[in-house]
Amino acid sequence: MYKDFRSDTVTQPTQDMRQAMLEAEVGDDILGEDPTVRKLETMSAAMFGKEAAMLTVSGTMANQIAIMALTQLGDEVIVGEDTHIYNLEVGALAALSCVQARPIASTQGQFAVNDVKKAIRPKGVQSPVSRVLCLENTYDLNRGYPLSPEYQAEMAGIARDHGMSVYLDGARIFNAAEALQVDLPQLAKHADALQFCLTKGLAAPFGSMLLGSKEFVEKAKWIKQRIGGGMRQAGHMAAAGIVALTTMRQRLREDHENALRLARGLAAVDERLVDVNLVKTNVVQINFEPAGKDAVSVTEALLKEHIKIKLIGPYACRMITHWGITPEDVDCAVAAIAKALK
Amino acid sequence: MYKDFRSDTVTQPTQDMRQAMLEAEVGDDILGEDPTVRKLETMSAAMFGKEAAMLTVSGTMANQIAIMALTQLGDEVIVGEDTHIYNLEVGALAALSCVQARPIASTQGQFAVNDVKKAIRPKGVQSPVSRVLCLENTYDLNRGYPLSPEYQAEMAGIARDHGMSVYLDGARIFNAAEALQVDLPQLAKHADALQFCLTKGLAAPFGSMLLGSKEFVEKAKWIKQRIGGGMRQAGHMAAAGIVALTTMRQRLREDHENALRLARGLAAVDERLVDVNLVKTNVVQINFEPAGKDAVSVTEALLKEHIKIKLIGPYACRMITHWGITPEDVDCAVAAIAKALK
Amino acid sequence: MYKDFRSDTVTQPTQDMRQAMLEAEVGDDILGEDPTVRKLETMSAAMFGKEAAMLTVSGTMANQIAIMALTQLGDEVIVGEDTHIYNLEVGALAALSCVQARPIASTQGQFAVNDVKKAIRPKGVQSPVSRVLCLENTYDLNRGYPLSPEYQAEMAGIARDHGMSVYLDGARIFNAAEALQVDLPQLAKHADALQFCLTKGLAAPFGSMLLGSKEFVEKAKWIKQRIGGGMRQAGHMAAAGIVALTTMRQRLREDHENALRLARGLAAVDERLVDVNLVKTNVVQINFEPAGKDAVSVTEALLKEHIKIKLIGPYACRMITHWGITPEDVDCAVAAIAKALK
Amino acid sequence: MYKDFRSDTVTQPTQDMRQAMLEAEVGDDILGEDPTVRKLETMSAAMFGKEAAMLTVSGTMANQIAIMALTQLGDEVIVGEDTHIYNLEVGALAALSCVQARPIASTQGQFAVNDVKKAIRPKGVQSPVSRVLCLENTYDLNRGYPLSPEYQAEMAGIARDHGMSVYLDGARIFNAAEALQVDLPQLAKHADALQFCLTKGLAAPFGSMLLGSKEFVEKAKWIKQRIGGGMRQAGHMAAAGIVALTTMRQRLREDHENALRLARGLAAVDERLVDVNLVKTNVVQINFEPAGKDAVSVTEALLKEHIKIKLIGPYACRMITHWGITPEDVDCAVAAIAKALK
Repeated sequence: MYKDFRSDTVTQPTQDMRQAMLEAEVGDDILGEDPTVRKLETMSAAMFGKEAAMLTVSGTMANQIAIMALTQLGDEVIVGEDTHIYNLEVGALAALSCVQARPIASTQGQFAVNDVKKAIRPKGVQSPVSRVLCLENTYDLNRGYPLSPEYQAEMAGIARDHGMSVYLDGARIFNAAEALQVDLPQLAKHADALQFCLTKGLAAPFGSMLLGSKEFVEKAKWIKQRIGGGMRQAGHMAAAGIVALTTMRQRLREDHENALRLARGLAAVDERLVDVNLVKTNVVQINFEPAGKDAVSVTEALLKEHIKIKLIGPYACRMITHWGITPEDVDCAVAAIAKALK
Repeated sequence: MYKDFRSDTVTQPTQDMRQAMLEAEVGDDILGEDPTVRKLETMSAAMFGKEAAMLTVSGTMANQIAIMALTQLGDEVIVGEDTHIYNLEVGALAALSCVQARPIASTQGQFAVNDVKKAIRPKGVQSPVSRVLCLENTYDLNRGYPLSPEYQAEMAGIARDHGMSVYLDGARIFNAAEALQVDLPQLAKHADALQFCLTKGLAAPFGSMLLGSKEFVEKAKWIKQRIGGGMRQAGHMAAAGIVALTTMRQRLREDHENALRLARGLAAVDERLVDVNLVKTNVVQINFEPAGKDAVSVTEALLKEHIKIKLIGPYACRMITHWGITPEDVDCAVAAIAKALK
Repeated sequence: MYKDFRSDTVTQPTQDMRQAMLEAEVGDDILGEDPTVRKLETMSAAMFGKEAAMLTVSGTMANQIAIMALTQLGDEVIVGEDTHIYNLEVGALAALSCVQARPIASTQGQFAVNDVKKAIRPKGVQSPVSRVLCLENTYDLNRGYPLSPEYQAEMAGIARDHGMSVYLDGARIFNAAEALQVDLPQLAKHADALQFCLTKGLAAPFGSMLLGSKEFVEKAKWIKQRIGGGMRQAGHMAAAGIVALTTMRQRLREDHENALRLARGLAAVDERLVDVNLVKTNVVQINFEPAGKDAVSVTEALLKEHIKIKLIGPYACRMITHWGITPEDVDCAVAAIAKALK
Repeated sequence: MYKDFRSDTVTQPTQDMRQAMLEAEVGDDILGEDPTVRKLETMSAAMFGKEAAMLTVSGTMANQIAIMALTQLGDEVIVGEDTHIYNLEVGALAALSCVQARPIASTQGQFAVNDVKKAIRPKGVQSPVSRVLCLENTYDLNRGYPLSPEYQAEMAGIARDHGMSVYLDGARIFNAAEALQVDLPQLAKHADALQFCLTKGLAAPFGSMLLGSKEFVEKAKWIKQRIGGGMRQAGHMAAAGIVALTTMRQRLREDHENALRLARGLAAVDERLVDVNLVKTNVVQINFEPAGKDAVSVTEALLKEHIKIKLIGPYACRMITHWGITPEDVDCAVAAIAKALK
């Protein structure tokens, strides 16, 4: 058995989730007749203070459906340069929605006001329409920066002033809420639409929820069908999601404590390895360069100790804490890294 | 409880499927680490004599991924005018692959050789490239015509002569195999790629398998990720599919017998209602016009008897037999229709 | 020098057009500053009773811009199965607008009311939106059928009842007006947008005009820029177009008379060659099969006589009369065909 | 009459060009039968040392056809963040080719090697394929930086090492050749395909040439037809282009001298207005902020003096020298700006 720090996507479902999948009351969801999917959708919308919600297979699907619903062919969407929607969705913005991504830089996950304003195109016969501002919270899956409601409000204000929609990729929004100690509707209120994942910190096997107005969700259901995301007895999937939402949020604090424990442990080994102040949620980024090691050699050394971490650059790795990673696992990983650096 | 003849998509999973979902050994399938998904894919490929297979969420997703993988932007694909891929996938051929559908008519599901040849564009600066010939077996979800290996071979021959690929939408391919009493590889061998559904006759809650060469499936996995079809612990879904493949094929004969029983029962009520000779698998199409009734009024009358059938035109309805529909249910439906027509 | 009956696209510009190109007052049209383009656009809109017009390079460009302006990604457009927009624009409907073409048959260029109604999709989660009904007048470049205002009104009525737009590809609309002896606004009034070609019967070297509401044309200009149709000193092109519009319409009657002369001449040779009753404008379709000849051999025999005609099938050819083709040329062609058939 | 420094796109054609349009020998170019177009294409290919060339209506069209020909749906192309293809083509990369732009910064038009390498995606199931590296020379229409063959070779080397194509937007490549005093084939040799404009410095009324291998140009002609760029008697347009290529290149030196005269004149007024060292071709960028003026007020003041310049930011303007702008015009503009700043 490996201690797997590569991502919080590798979590195993809880026994309660497995039992819920077995017992789920199901129907044909394409016909709108699956009671468990309906229940999860209603619960999700209420939790975030949105009118409606829709189950999708994945966060990528939710993100891309949202953009298809909010844009027209040839539009431009403003994205963070380190975001999932820009870097890890196989060019889907252009491939599926035929929209141009306009990436901008961030500082600890925050865009500069002027950068956003400059990225919005003035109207003109040679210019695409700037249609959507995409936020991500927590920002950057190799950093996990939580973004405050105040920041989101400011960004949304700029977007609104220019007639743009705001979309929020909240794949790890529960981590942001935990880190900031704010209510979910506070994080959702400035977005026209948002998604969150039932996987990752909540440990469900699959599924993401896309939220917005009733009108938006109705359009989203139609687009979901087009890309083949419509499912028949999807209630089995939804049943695990309901367990995730009701039982797993409370324990995200442990993941954050474990991430901090990991960062501090590594800093004690060599303070140049990690910037402890940047660890706000469940992600720790490590730079092995000052310690004179490349990332591949460290990763391989750890593998022999039955520890998996994610390579993200020639000298950089990422570790994520999650359901199934204990404080002891963290200490074990710190020791193994210390050994590998010797 | 309704007797639901609208479609074979409304089936409830078996208890074995539910148990399999509970017990499934799972991993992160986007990382290629879910053992149950791998098992289902290997089993599926072997069953149809193809090199490789990939789990998708739905038949629509499998169809559209296949077309994306087999075409280039601006190509043309030849489709049957009564097919799912042309009529019931929300325009996805154009929306996702940017290809033009060229529909042709069929007689009991079979294209005329000359119609296919005429539909293939000669090369020219004003012409799109005719890239894929799409077959569907069984053909027409309101008819369910099984198509023989010999017919498929003939069509594939024309396509190959013109440098085109052949894609087979085998959503109900098991019904075709049962009706024709032929082996699955016989039905698959003339297609470059094909999909079959784990739902419908096999009664799994969700999932379809896309099959083809190793190279094709590798490309398909990449495209699946782009449209958000990648899942994490997808083994739960696959586990139900394995049960479907191993335990449910044998019983399709019952569905076909029930469909014939239904057709004959209706013909005994009024021989103009149904053409018994056209009922080859699990689909029965009924025409109420000669009996002086419109489809809406019959459908509503049946609903009061707790029987659901599908409206497909002003005077036409469709009934599909499936897991959960018994000979007694069929007799009950015949009686109810007879009553409604009085 | 060849007598070239292949198409009316091969016409040479008149000396007046050449002179007008030399003398044109021009400016940067992308900046909206070309006076000659403005003049042509204003003249065109007025001629057809539309609010606004835009110069494009070609009929294909005008057609495709119109569809891009009138649709949203994933929509469906209903087209005639023998139309230019479906058959001779390289799959652009899907490639550029991401819309699905739904072709329907016609009888002498006219759709059956029921076929149109059946082709319009009812709303549903699996259905694309039927967005535009595309007419073509004259219909079928191998037939040239003129369609009456009454027919167009009926078609437009069906479209409007279902919330659809009507687009008219009037590449040869002047031929229709001449044949039917109706005013241009009568032919334009039922279309939300239409295009006509300055080439073909009017013999300009290039250019087509796209017409519609001010709002439509504003959007069209923006889309024209996206596909690279924006030009700088386009007034040279427009100047020739103005000459075409003001001097060449009157002579279309000659083309029609020549076409009839050709058809009658051929019928006199062998009445099975051509259906004289179907020749309504400037197009003659010839079937050599009853005369025991294939089209390739006739075409090659004519080439030796310095006559070019267009091959459109194994036994079929098309001849179009136009600026530069005289009654004597017609008689000469008839004689040459008679000779080739011996 | 205005002195128009807004762009070199506002040039009026020479009398020779007008005469050439009048006299042009023309044919149907969609049928490949226009001798003047053929002549221009042959001449253009030879001039740059490429196998083949194709006339297009505009630089935007040439750019977008090239990308459509070199990419597959869903690919990624690396572009400079200040380029025309990214900023001024209405989102066409995504709208037409369905590819994602990945913009990178430059220093005086040059990308850092590491930035390019970092922008190339490693292969992965979540990553688009990095397919084309787009260069622009001269770079940035508000700067006009010429890029050396050595730089282009280095960039092309990186692209090739990663299996990518190289495309060169040479809208103002003649300015680069003049500034660097290098032969055109030296600037073209590292690109798989490139375009140059017949407008701008060469002052033709319209038209751009797309160059590459025979195979590339054959594909490009087919794509040109799809987007409606195919023209009938295009020889009129080509005739002006031939005059542009044969008579206008020699005078670009004057434009560069005038630009330098302008920059130096402005620096003499206030050295903070312009960085003379950055003026390498025919473009001068002016920053009015240090002089305490905003760009709108200066622009309006100049307009009263019958001088047009282009606003490109709250405090920034651009001036371009071109055919029709004399040293006296330059001095006049300097004086007017000096007056406006008082």
